[in-house]
Amino acid sequence: MASMTTLNGSRLDRSLLEAVLKPRLFFSEVFEIYRLSPNFKGDNRGLYDYGLLGTALQTNIVDAWRKHFVLEENFLELDCSVLTPEFVLKTSGHVDKFADLMCKGPAKGEYLRADHLVENVLESRLSWGLNGPSKDSPKLGDAAISEYNDILAKIGNYDGPQLGELITRLDIRNPDGNGEANPPIPFNLMFKSTIGPSSATPICLRPETAQSHVGKAYKNEISPRSGLLQVREFLVAEIEHFVEPENKQHARFSEVCNVKLPLLDKEKQLAGNTTPQTLTVGEVVKSKVVDNETLGYFLGRVMLFLLKIGIDPLKVRFRQHMDNEMAHYACDCWDAELLTSYGWIECVGCADRSAYDLAVHSKYTGTPLVVEQALSEPVKKLVDPRFKRDAKAMQTSLATQLRETGAVTINTPVLSDGSTSVELSSNLLAISKVTRTSNTRKYTPNVIEPSFGIGRILYSLLEQVYWHRPHDAARAVRYVGLLNLDSSSASIGKRYARNDELGTPLGITIDFDTLADGSITLKERDSMTSFENLADSIESWEEISQRLQPFLGQGQED
Amino acid sequence: MASMTTLNGSRLDRSLLEAVLKPRLFFSEVFEIYRLSPNFKGDNRGLYDYGLLGTALQTNIVDAWRKHFVLEENFLELDCSVLTPEFVLKTSGHVDKFADLMCKGPAKGEYLRADHLVENVLESRLSWGLNGPSKDSPKLGDAAISEYNDILAKIGNYDGPQLGELITRLDIRNPDGNGEANPPIPFNLMFKSTIGPSSATPICLRPETAQSHVGKAYKNEISPRSGLLQVREFLVAEIEHFVEPENKQHARFSEVCNVKLPLLDKEKQLAGNTTPQTLTVGEVVKSKVVDNETLGYFLGRVMLFLLKIGIDPLKVRFRQHMDNEMAHYACDCWDAELLTSYGWIECVGCADRSAYDLAVHSKYTGTPLVVEQALSEPVKKLVDPRFKRDAKAMQTSLATQLRETGAVTINTPVLSDGSTSVELSSNLLAISKVTRTSNTRKYTPNVIEPSFGIGRILYSLLEQVYWHRPHDAARAVRYVGLLNLDSSSASIGKRYARNDELGTPLGITIDFDTLADGSITLKERDSMTSFENLADSIESWEEISQRLQPFLGQGQED
Repeated sequence: MASMTTLNGSRLDRSLLEAVLKPRLFFSEVFEIYRLSPNFKGDNRGLYDYGLLGTALQTNIVDAWRKHFVLEENFLELDCSVLTPEFVLKTSGHVDKFADLMCKGPAKGEYLRADHLVENVLESRLSWGLNGPSKDSPKLGDAAISEYNDILAKIGNYDGPQLGELITRLDIRNPDGNGEANPPIPFNLMFKSTIGPSSATPICLRPETAQSHVGKAYKNEISPRSGLLQVREFLVAEIEHFVEPENKQHARFSEVCNVKLPLLDKEKQLAGNTTPQTLTVGEVVKSKVVDNETLGYFLGRVMLFLLKIGIDPLKVRFRQHMDNEMAHYACDCWDAELLTSYGWIECVGCADRSAYDLAVHSKYTGTPLVVEQALSEPVKKLVDPRFKRDAKAMQTSLATQLRETGAVTINTPVLSDGSTSVELSSNLLAISKVTRTSNTRKYTPNVIEPSFGIGRILYSLLEQVYWHRPHDAARAVRYVGLLNLDSSSASIGKRYARNDELGTPLGITIDFDTLADGSITLKERDSMTSFENLADSIESWEEISQRLQPFLGQGQED
Repeated sequence: MASMTTLNGSRLDRSLLEAVLKPRLFFSEVFEIYRLSPNFKGDNRGLYDYGLLGTALQTNIVDAWRKHFVLEENFLELDCSVLTPEFVLKTSGHVDKFADLMCKGPAKGEYLRADHLVENVLESRLSWGLNGPSKDSPKLGDAAISEYNDILAKIGNYDGPQLGELITRLDIRNPDGNGEANPPIPFNLMFKSTIGPSSATPICLRPETAQSHVGKAYKNEISPRSGLLQVREFLVAEIEHFVEPENKQHARFSEVCNVKLPLLDKEKQLAGNTTPQTLTVGEVVKSKVVDNETLGYFLGRVMLFLLKIGIDPLKVRFRQHMDNEMAHYACDCWDAELLTSYGWIECVGCADRSAYDLAVHSKYTGTPLVVEQALSEPVKKLVDPRFKRDAKAMQTSLATQLRETGAVTINTPVLSDGSTSVELSSNLLAISKVTRTSNTRKYTPNVIEPSFGIGRILYSLLEQVYWHRPHDAARAVRYVGLLNLDSSSASIGKRYARNDELGTPLGITIDFDTLADGSITLKERDSMTSFENLADSIESWEEISQRLQPFLGQGQED
């Protein structure tokens, strides 16, 4: 597993980070007092509440997303229902295919996600260098090490029978108790309910937001682990960008052409390679590693978004889905993965869903879901200029008469300029039979869908921006971009430490002295120095700090 | 039913309003192409998608809510899970009591909400003035008219057996087919599912957001009607304001003391009265019609919020819940109701939930959920000033020794200033047995909960601000406060009409002339006049329009 370091280079100790996040209520498990209660038989795993700071950070990320995509790309935002009739999800393929493979452990009756089981056991064997945890177990041979690494590099590409074969051949057992695991079976991951008083009409919680842009989606994970990174209810931001199937160029492609992407394509993964290669968007579209301009455009835009909110460019990679791993609706898919202490985590998926969804829903409902494109200007109707505003009404009247009776009766029209007679020129009354030529082309548009897991991005960002002051691991610093008004009664030293934890980059202290002489105190996070009486300035902090004397008096005790 | 007029006084024709809202996709029924499909057996009633304009308006209302409450009241915002273990909702009372009464119609097997059935039939009889729709039916007598009105005024206050008695005695039948209705039975309104792979662990969709502040909640309505006003999935904004049970005063009460509230208390309703009385917040709290200052404060703040977003003060009233109508957790509750073409609709509920929730969850889990209030400063510990930073460690060490061994051994301490010896004064070592007095008071706080149905507010607002130009009902105008960038290729006349529909109060036209000579054209919605070359100005539109000449040239055609 890739190792994770903090912003100032030391190894990330997740327990230290959690010790900062938990008491500040960034997020917490739901209904914890119930889970701790001896009578509780429910399951609260994979469900989290966001506290004040978590909510504020989540709001900031969603705001940044709206500015970067909805506003800058001029998208139209919709807000759609979570409850979805099962019929719709049968058509979309989710009833049959939105499933993970699980193995029952017959000894204890629990269920294990099959790919995670194989992954965990092989990673343990590799980390021990042994076949088992005991010192007497034989060493792993070079062939086994090579095979295990190869399996792990393409773990997402195995189907049920293949995972079953690995479990039997490599004698993979439940790490909790060493019991055998049954062969993998699919488990549908949608939450199901019924709607209406008859309790006979099935409805599901949507497994993705799709046409809605920011909202909750649901996945009944078999066995959630990894905190915010694998949850059963999550906030998603999704884009549906429709394109012509035969023309997937993008008008703004040149804007992202030079954005650098660290890429891991499917051929590399199948060859057991896990080192990404950095190429520009222009290069990967030209070489067809990424299929088309629009998909490439969005990979570039996703990269720019991640950098904008503070993701470390060295801790992001774009990994292409392997063929068996791809969702049933996708024809190409790239995940933006972020490095965390849990390894590389899929945070944004960019799928080319082709015309899959529109085609299946159109077929089931009998409703055309197509674009009609005018190929050329329709032939202009020849009208007498003297009719002016009456031309259309006259023409309609003549055409209707002709269609309905096969003849035209010319009454004296009352025209809008008051005149009651008009001389009809011969071109108005020329009647001929013509073959109509359709000047439109109909097609089902394809859709490129970038989909953002907000909670995963949020947690990865917290890990990536966390650092602590050298020699004082308890004094954590992050940057979350909050306006934080701390009017508590704690000592000023405690309040400075707390604002370090919140990531406040610049503290403005207003106290009794402000009332007396109008002075304020500024404290800059990274240098830990304070200054008094600093007005608005365009100087940098370095320039300012050279000009001013640090304030070392009252209120600096810890 | 109260009649509904538009802003310029004409009767509101809902079909005209809908003809504006539907093509603009303010909102639409979900999966409409499925509902229209002959094969579809699902149920999409009570579920709506918001389109571009609906989403924008909803976002604006939620933003206004956050500014008015979260920011101005300095609230802490949380974002919590929708999925809730059934165990928790058993404790909260929702499994047993969150139910509506329904009657099965045995003829067709359908389910009818019992109070709506009685309400619909009695309203029909009153509107006909007859016992039935036929002209030969006997006229309603004065006694029946009086009784029906009395029943309708307190329809929310009947329990199951009472509604059953009314249905039998007044021979109330299913309006669809005139079949009999069975006696009312309760139907629980929560959507239920299971969590995890065993499919044996029950979980529900939350029926209210409670501790979360803005989010979706769910209610499996028996038979949704009235569009956005009765839905199964809805956006809610909720506040939990905790107060001392014996002191429900509010520090900012004076700020809302003079806000006028149109009130309909429970005594009036039980007496069959439906005319509200307008009193100030100060008056109703003083006279105890509203129980306490904090509840009164929030009624005032709710009124100010509704006025701020554009609700007509003549189309809002505050109705107190009758005793049988009140939710199981509430001890007093007032609804802000808005007038719509469907009648008066509950849009904001303000409940005093007392200590109900904290008490039941604390009891079930064995977790104290109390406030500990310091009644006086604890006695300061007497320490030797020479110990400085070591005082606390010394004191802890001495106290621990004394507790664990009953004796104190004095070792030579190494103090932080480097000295290794210290003379202990007698007051440090004075050992005595004392009775400890607790200086704290513990109590379970009460909670006042204003709860806002965003979709209902949004729809009521659309009805209340809708009007159309005299003599041109097709040209609708609303105000939704949007920044609307219309860069389409439609003619300028069409674009002006479209922006009327969107409610754009002031149009700024940038066209080829702008490129040529820098001029822009302004168009003001309500006067329908255009002006060119208007710079930023603090003059009113009336002043400006006197100074400038209307632009009547190019592009004014419809």
